[in-house]
Amino acid sequence: MRLKLIHNIMVLLDGKKTAKSLKDEIAKDVVQMIDNEIEAPHLVAILVGDDPASQTYVSAKEKACQSVGITSSIYRLPSKTTEEELLQTVDFLNNDKEVDGFIVQLPLPKHINEQRIIESIDPAKDVDGFHPVNVGKMALGIDAYLPATPAGIIELLKRYDIETEGKHCVVLGRSNIVGSPISIMMGQKKNPGNSTVTLCHSKTKNIKQIAASADILIVAIGKPEFVTADMVKPDAVVIDVGIHRVPSKKTKSGFKLIGDVKFDEVSKKASYITPVPGGVGPMTIAGLLANTLKAAKINRGIN
Amino acid sequence: MRLKLIHNIMVLLDGKKTAKSLKDEIAKDVVQMIDNEIEAPHLVAILVGDDPASQTYVSAKEKACQSVGITSSIYRLPSKTTEEELLQTVDFLNNDKEVDGFIVQLPLPKHINEQRIIESIDPAKDVDGFHPVNVGKMALGIDAYLPATPAGIIELLKRYDIETEGKHCVVLGRSNIVGSPISIMMGQKKNPGNSTVTLCHSKTKNIKQIAASADILIVAIGKPEFVTADMVKPDAVVIDVGIHRVPSKKTKSGFKLIGDVKFDEVSKKASYITPVPGGVGPMTIAGLLANTLKAAKINRGIN
Repeated sequence: MRLKLIHNIMVLLDGKKTAKSLKDEIAKDVVQMIDNEIEAPHLVAILVGDDPASQTYVSAKEKACQSVGITSSIYRLPSKTTEEELLQTVDFLNNDKEVDGFIVQLPLPKHINEQRIIESIDPAKDVDGFHPVNVGKMALGIDAYLPATPAGIIELLKRYDIETEGKHCVVLGRSNIVGSPISIMMGQKKNPGNSTVTLCHSKTKNIKQIAASADILIVAIGKPEFVTADMVKPDAVVIDVGIHRVPSKKTKSGFKLIGDVKFDEVSKKASYITPVPGGVGPMTIAGLLANTLKAAKINRGIN
Repeated sequence: MRLKLIHNIMVLLDGKKTAKSLKDEIAKDVVQMIDNEIEAPHLVAILVGDDPASQTYVSAKEKACQSVGITSSIYRLPSKTTEEELLQTVDFLNNDKEVDGFIVQLPLPKHINEQRIIESIDPAKDVDGFHPVNVGKMALGIDAYLPATPAGIIELLKRYDIETEGKHCVVLGRSNIVGSPISIMMGQKKNPGNSTVTLCHSKTKNIKQIAASADILIVAIGKPEFVTADMVKPDAVVIDVGIHRVPSKKTKSGFKLIGDVKFDEVSKKASYITPVPGGVGPMTIAGLLANTLKAAKINRGIN
């Protein structure tokens, strides 16, 4: 009688722990810069208006900077700021030699053309990787500031030594900041990369069957618990980019955070899976810090 | 007794004819510019060295310009031209107000860094759509100079009114000038577009099965007659980007042109198919002319 092989035990892709290692490495580099009497990297975040989610994100970024020794400033502008005024602020930061990189927290108030603002940022200071020059270099496989979430996913795959070459990677969601760039990066001649990539979106037919054919499933579709166990191949690697706040009777706060993947059931089938929270989220902030350190090194002529 | 439905008759995607219509439209616009005493568009091609294929391409582009009334100049530089000298030529053309757009014919001699040259071109004059700014805008779905071959494929799908939304589009080949950009464009929220796109390449496993699952199969893999009938779904749309010159006893010249697709057998199975020659090739040149006209209109403030 032959014994049936037992499924590998599922491994949690611990973004919090991995981001911690990344941040430790960044902090070490920053300390070395300071020891050598070189100015620490400096990141500026521009926050227009008082959107609560944006305030939370910007605060989290500031805290993360502090934790690794990166100097951080926040420019808080009133919601009635005009496009012209914001362009002037961007121009000022483009020319401020004390600033290595800066981000304009999105979304912006509706009277401001976001794309115009993004294109006004000096690509060399665009640590969010949203400027067309950086997007283009990314698509061409040239060194660039990569957008933080896709870069964080790639880093997570790398640090867990997950084989991606020749695997079928299915990406759900085609946003310009996650789905589209990660689908490009996963198909490139790199490691991680070299996957056969299928990009799915709202017009995709048979999304369940396509998802279920994935060796690596990256979900950035923005729908709470959209991916159920029947949409996942046994032993697939599952990356959940979604984050949603939903009411809960089980928590003190009265709410909990869930992803685009139904974690309880999918985690029983996957070989590797990111939790929410504590998966892709912390990696995103680490990616921003890494880009800021990179900008500072370029500015100071350090390899 | 029910009659078995007869397969639709295969339709040839006639790139030569379609490019002719496109060129007629461009010529009409140019005539109108001249009638209004507005300078005709002006395209410059820089040709470094004496690669025979490059000379053929540049001559074909010049001839196409003449056929639609676009002024065309060729800068012929010796193969020993230094990178610095070529950068100076690019800089001169960037600043020459009489030039609407220019291209640097690739490949360049090995001692010149191609990427450095491409990045030195003013994106507003980059009618090849190779500059990272244009690649980035394309990837973001923003108006840009699109690379001519993918743009030609999109135009062909549009003019033959081929339904692409929700279809499975498989792209074979991930080059920066064809496979990668067309895979991005076919997945975008546009028409043509909105396909579920799978990008395959040298590391893809089961490439035959994946190709055979395509409603729209775009082949840019650079291997003569790589795609055989067994790799094609009945009634698929097949776009062949390859072009190879092979010996032939049947032709006077002693050679013939073939594509990446085994036309004889695949054409019996496909609903639409591009021939080689006369398919994607003529559309590519038309795309370049369209970009040049667009640049001229922008420069002269014409909508």
